[in-house]
Amino acid sequence: MAEPSEGGALPTVGQRATRSYTFTAESVAQFAALVGDGNPIHLDAAYAAQAPFGRPIVHGIFVASLLSAALGEQLPGPGCIYLGQTLRFEAPVYVDETVTASVEVSAVRAEKRIVTLRTECARADGVRVLSGEAVVKC
Amino acid sequence: MAEPSEGGALPTVGQRATRSYTFTAESVAQFAALVGDGNPIHLDAAYAAQAPFGRPIVHGIFVASLLSAALGEQLPGPGCIYLGQTLRFEAPVYVDETVTASVEVSAVRAEKRIVTLRTECARADGVRVLSGEAVVKC
Repeated sequence: MAEPSEGGALPTVGQRATRSYTFTAESVAQFAALVGDGNPIHLDAAYAAQAPFGRPIVHGIFVASLLSAALGEQLPGPGCIYLGQTLRFEAPVYVDETVTASVEVSAVRAEKRIVTLRTECARADGVRVLSGEAVVKC
Repeated sequence: MAEPSEGGALPTVGQRATRSYTFTAESVAQFAALVGDGNPIHLDAAYAAQAPFGRPIVHGIFVASLLSAALGEQLPGPGCIYLGQTLRFEAPVYVDETVTASVEVSAVRAEKRIVTLRTECARADGVRVLSGEAVVKC
């Protein structure tokens, strides 16, 4: 069994981690069913064809979940607890696109074990789709 | 087929919608597997017993997904596109708890069809677990 990170080494400013994920029609449908978000802009090609982006887009909060995964598995890693996240959705992610999330430590309050990270997600074509800031307790 | 909401009636300030969801161990495990977030504070009872909350807690971003569902299905409803969301995680949600999300329109920029909503989630015991603000385009 892994041990909680509390009391362990804190990350340092400038540390960075990335992870990638490909959003398939199947994973988008699974996400929609699991969280109960059936907005047809994500699921219905005929509906999406008449919407501004012209084809189905991935739920923004599903894309943001990549940031949670990077924080919880990589940096700061297991045991960290989410205190806050800001999210600016800057461009759409279409179904079958691969997105890379990156998190980079921007501040560490050692006495409270609170870490602030710059967070963003980009498509394979380099377009940034999501930016914001995370605050976690280690 | 439903029609995109673009061009339809905008919501008005003060309109409100709520929805509830019970986070089971099964749904938390499904979320973890789908998004790849295996932080043991959510999944491993023995690990969580040694962490600050003493038992597994639901992923904050999974709780936040309830807000996306309320926005995408209820208010403003189908067709809306996420522009931004702030999230303050104020208290833990334990596995098997029911959470109610609420979204309330706080501002409408009619010419740009941009709607701002106060968003929050509360446990069945009334404790607020999440607060923030959403911005969507209709």
